[in-house]
Amino acid sequence: MKNITLSELKNNFDETVTISGFVDEIRNLKWVQFIVLRDSTGKVQITIEKSEEKNKDLVELVNNLTVESTIKVTGKIMESPKVKLNGMELIPDNIEVTSTNLDELPFNYKDLSTVNLDTRLDYRYIDLRSDKNILMFQVQSTLVRYMREYLYNNKFTEIHTPKIIGAASESGSEVFEIKYFDRSAYLAQSPQFYKQMALASGFDRVFEVAPCFRAENSNTSRHATEFTSFDVEFAYINDFNDVMDLEAEMLKYGLEKTKEALGDKVKEVFDTEIIVPKTPFPKMRLSDIYKELEEKYNYKVDDSEKADLTTEAERLTYKLAMDKFNSEFLFVTDFPAEKRAFYHMRDKNGILQGYDLIWRGVEITTGAQREHRYEEIVKNAKEKGLGDDVKFYLDFFKHGCPPHGGFAIGVDRLTMLLLGIPSVKETEFIFRGPNRLNP
Amino acid sequence: MKNITLSELKNNFDETVTISGFVDEIRNLKWVQFIVLRDSTGKVQITIEKSEEKNKDLVELVNNLTVESTIKVTGKIMESPKVKLNGMELIPDNIEVTSTNLDELPFNYKDLSTVNLDTRLDYRYIDLRSDKNILMFQVQSTLVRYMREYLYNNKFTEIHTPKIIGAASESGSEVFEIKYFDRSAYLAQSPQFYKQMALASGFDRVFEVAPCFRAENSNTSRHATEFTSFDVEFAYINDFNDVMDLEAEMLKYGLEKTKEALGDKVKEVFDTEIIVPKTPFPKMRLSDIYKELEEKYNYKVDDSEKADLTTEAERLTYKLAMDKFNSEFLFVTDFPAEKRAFYHMRDKNGILQGYDLIWRGVEITTGAQREHRYEEIVKNAKEKGLGDDVKFYLDFFKHGCPPHGGFAIGVDRLTMLLLGIPSVKETEFIFRGPNRLNP
Repeated sequence: MKNITLSELKNNFDETVTISGFVDEIRNLKWVQFIVLRDSTGKVQITIEKSEEKNKDLVELVNNLTVESTIKVTGKIMESPKVKLNGMELIPDNIEVTSTNLDELPFNYKDLSTVNLDTRLDYRYIDLRSDKNILMFQVQSTLVRYMREYLYNNKFTEIHTPKIIGAASESGSEVFEIKYFDRSAYLAQSPQFYKQMALASGFDRVFEVAPCFRAENSNTSRHATEFTSFDVEFAYINDFNDVMDLEAEMLKYGLEKTKEALGDKVKEVFDTEIIVPKTPFPKMRLSDIYKELEEKYNYKVDDSEKADLTTEAERLTYKLAMDKFNSEFLFVTDFPAEKRAFYHMRDKNGILQGYDLIWRGVEITTGAQREHRYEEIVKNAKEKGLGDDVKFYLDFFKHGCPPHGGFAIGVDRLTMLLLGIPSVKETEFIFRGPNRLNP
Repeated sequence: MKNITLSELKNNFDETVTISGFVDEIRNLKWVQFIVLRDSTGKVQITIEKSEEKNKDLVELVNNLTVESTIKVTGKIMESPKVKLNGMELIPDNIEVTSTNLDELPFNYKDLSTVNLDTRLDYRYIDLRSDKNILMFQVQSTLVRYMREYLYNNKFTEIHTPKIIGAASESGSEVFEIKYFDRSAYLAQSPQFYKQMALASGFDRVFEVAPCFRAENSNTSRHATEFTSFDVEFAYINDFNDVMDLEAEMLKYGLEKTKEALGDKVKEVFDTEIIVPKTPFPKMRLSDIYKELEEKYNYKVDDSEKADLTTEAERLTYKLAMDKFNSEFLFVTDFPAEKRAFYHMRDKNGILQGYDLIWRGVEITTGAQREHRYEEIVKNAKEKGLGDDVKFYLDFFKHGCPPHGGFAIGVDRLTMLLLGIPSVKETEFIFRGPNRLNP
């Protein structure tokens, strides 16, 4: 990496350096030309005095330069308290134009507030140039990096499970079908069956960060037909409290490290703090939540809706969790077993050993202890009317399988909540929905 | 993580601990019972003296225990030089059976040499229980972990590009088609276009580790219809030497750290050394390779085949690279431009600015400087007869795009070469080929 990034310039005052980036701004004044150069780490001012004889060619070059072109600049970097932009400027000896912006941009990405979201997504390669978008993906990458690190430090192995599957397992209706040579195959909705297989094979602790696919014809701020899922599964748990506790510790570690790395920049660009949560996160039973929402906030809902959190109840748990526990996170437990997947364990009283995690009033995880006993999982599958399509999965439990549990977090949704962005359409690198397949 | 792993036991001599794992072996002798317990980190012997009155229930339990069941054991861990297995044994106070192996295994996974590969893949959840397979995926996870770390340390951002794409871009023939609501979509063969888009958007340095899909109806040791690709792309390079050099440094770092973490275990289980390469890796022109293969090893091939490395020539480069440079790695450059993708840059003499990386006689990477100049990339696409399907991609270069390059490494192939495994069918967690969609 011979080019240094703009964030490193402050370590090189009075030295001759070579830097590269996009032309963010050009100001051509009577006696002086200013270029603001931008890369993914920052910005710097380049100053060219027109009166100096040696600058003749540079002045000419800048006269013909267009913003959003890319240039490579060699020159001396000077500390300059009078320069508003980071208190420094570069005095160039040489500028090379490495690519040219040939045309007007489709919109001004520096003020996206007036641009229709669909237009932004059509020209995603321009939309992403905004400071917020670049930083958003740096934050996402950093958070995932450190959630992974937490798991590596705890002896987890990363696996890569197949996305092309032979049978439309869990629920046929929301699965994409593929033409697979002379037969049909399907796109995996989740790595659930395969991460559990790893545990049946003796992997003990596994995770995967990979795309999941859902053929849902819905258009909300939280849904996409393709999204990145952070999946975790591990063996030898005592009960599902172990699963919740590990998830909380992992999120805390990830948020702490992300704050260290990018907290100041997030504050500057998004005007928001990265908040490091306290662990363990509080836990409440679903029925107790409805009781308290009614008592405290007069939120009433018909009993028939109480098998799950309504969207409004989900939203209100943010307030409840803050008021009651001073926590942005809340684990919700004791969902009715009949509403949940057949592979979630129930205790001897039929109580589901699973949970949702709500952050700032939005569900970000479903997790559970899994049913690992062959007879029980076969019975559960039969009850849900699942047949031959899941037989290959049931076989995993025939030859010994340790007690285990796990969870999945939507990376795009996590990013949305962390930075207060309205929709996953913006937090996916390139969003996919029923009506969106481009670019 | 309340359970400690078996690799940690040596730190707990004379303490009472709780451990869990699979029953690897049971020996029921006249005066004593031995259980070998196995987890993903190691094995330990559990010793039960039959004569001791307090062991009555334990003896009864072990009489009914089946191998491959899972148990949870509490007891005292003792240093015991007389015990062959790691010089320690656990004297149990309590054993709980946490799952039961109900049936005979379909084959003995401890001696896979006599088992047909298809049978192994049919029962992959049993096949993976072997020491070699568990370790293989720990090595893969560790290598990927540290290749990522190298990139993070060099300010790379990890992205997640879409796998569902609107047009069958690069080459329609090897693309899987998806039923996408009322239209067709396709599975991405690589993140190539999208990782370049990130650079056009100002991300500077990106990578992705994700599945790629190829509808190739071929059945070789190196091909799969789905595989994990480690993709890297970065801006502001001077030429494609920068790309080769970064790849070499990344591989070196990854291999070095993997050797530190698992080198001893790899030596024990695979009887092979993890070799940390010297950098930079040697580079040779394709035509020079053919010349030297003929001169040195009398390998002759018709000129018509010299536009690429034949499989045999690829194999022989291992010997050539060792003899000439004492290197297992060799970069091959100067392929004819007409045989390569339209987005690879050519210099002003038409020489392709791309390369293959050969490790131990097998190609593991194609890399290149990319064409970033709008007029040139449009011309190249036209020459290859590419039409509207790539228009969205060509647009990325209209509004400024820095010079850049990158490469992709097949993770499964890398694992195969590192550990000397014959086929990617074994190094993919679950292999997918034209005739294989299960489990």
